[in-house]
Amino acid sequence: MNYMLVLLRHGQSAWNLENRFTGWVDVPLSEQGVAEAKQAGVLMRQAGLDLDVVHTSLLKRAIQTSYWALDELDQLWIPTKRSWRLNERHYGALQGLDKKETALKHGEEQIALWRRSYDVAPPELPSEDPRHPRFDPRYRSLAPDLMPATESLKDTVHRLLPYWHDEVVSDLRCGRRVLVTAHGNSLRALVKHLEGLSEDEVAKLNIPTGVPLVYELDAALKPIRSSYLGDADVVAQATAAVANQSKV
Amino acid sequence: MNYMLVLLRHGQSAWNLENRFTGWVDVPLSEQGVAEAKQAGVLMRQAGLDLDVVHTSLLKRAIQTSYWALDELDQLWIPTKRSWRLNERHYGALQGLDKKETALKHGEEQIALWRRSYDVAPPELPSEDPRHPRFDPRYRSLAPDLMPATESLKDTVHRLLPYWHDEVVSDLRCGRRVLVTAHGNSLRALVKHLEGLSEDEVAKLNIPTGVPLVYELDAALKPIRSSYLGDADVVAQATAAVANQSKV
Repeated sequence: MNYMLVLLRHGQSAWNLENRFTGWVDVPLSEQGVAEAKQAGVLMRQAGLDLDVVHTSLLKRAIQTSYWALDELDQLWIPTKRSWRLNERHYGALQGLDKKETALKHGEEQIALWRRSYDVAPPELPSEDPRHPRFDPRYRSLAPDLMPATESLKDTVHRLLPYWHDEVVSDLRCGRRVLVTAHGNSLRALVKHLEGLSEDEVAKLNIPTGVPLVYELDAALKPIRSSYLGDADVVAQATAAVANQSKV
Repeated sequence: MNYMLVLLRHGQSAWNLENRFTGWVDVPLSEQGVAEAKQAGVLMRQAGLDLDVVHTSLLKRAIQTSYWALDELDQLWIPTKRSWRLNERHYGALQGLDKKETALKHGEEQIALWRRSYDVAPPELPSEDPRHPRFDPRYRSLAPDLMPATESLKDTVHRLLPYWHDEVVSDLRCGRRVLVTAHGNSLRALVKHLEGLSEDEVAKLNIPTGVPLVYELDAALKPIRSSYLGDADVVAQATAAVANQSKV
């Protein structure tokens, strides 16, 4: 028996437009982001996908993406589970800053290191900073030890994996076809684990926004095959756009 | 310790506009229905409500209502649970029919009986009818014995109560502030139980659409007080509009 897993990265948010670091800041999708989510739903419908459960982060850009995609698929009614462990990488004190200004201040090399290295985290958000997750009601039941003030991609992998093993895998093992709607870095973290990528390989991995990535997994939950839904040229363009974005 | 429960009836759907019997048919909200849902969220925000969990039916007009209301409240991230037991009353073979034509065919007295009596159900949907719930994937895990082909309000009360006792009450007992987003008749069924209404009393009960009804419950889960959010005149108008609707 094979398993089906679909990964979907949310589309453009208000802060992509403003060119600011986002991380755990809860910004909504832009109009274009909503259109991307609907288009993802259209692609899933055209591919004849039938889903049993959706997992999202606690951030509204992922929740909105799942809503609009499932609405197009006419599957708004499937069970929905949410977890902070699917959130975007926490970007520490960079959150909210203008990307260009930050590059001028810290230098492009430093920014590239924060963005693409595996185990270097940006500076921490001070615990008194009002942007710290401990002031956000959605994390009120989260143990202080678990609450990040910044993260490297490695940190994101480590906090994501318990949710993968405990929640997503348990749905897959029940034969459920699972959609995970999340973020650039939480999905890179998941794909690294799924495909057994090295740190260098994941640094080069770019996941396009708004394009469902469908995995077929074997009994050991190893990928047998994977493909992006939709026109190959459109997917290549979307991937290139994401790759270019990470150039400062 | 007192408990907080908020009930919210979805607003106008596409079929309210077309004046057809809806029941379990999965029609979307109209534009006005979306506006009503957003306004419900505004009222909850203005009242300073803070919710911990939302329960909805499996029908998109309730799911859309919870989405837009929670978006306004900036609480899209709260856990979401869905169940067929919160669905609208199943309207049997009347589902999809024009209300006026049905009244001409069966007589106004018969329609009034189907709509407002406690234990008279409309004619059943035949089990081969493609509109029967057994053909709908959202009910595929439901035991055939439980799957209605028509319902009286009494039937709705009976299938709703297990969900109330097992799921909603268990959230309330954990101290969670609960929102239930559902339908005219499933909410009348719930209010009948909560307030201990007689069959005659529930026949006269009209719940306005898009207006949050906030209950404070005591340790035995009996209502201490309840109130509709928002301007009293607006609530009275909305209630009168619903009462008039049920006149054929």
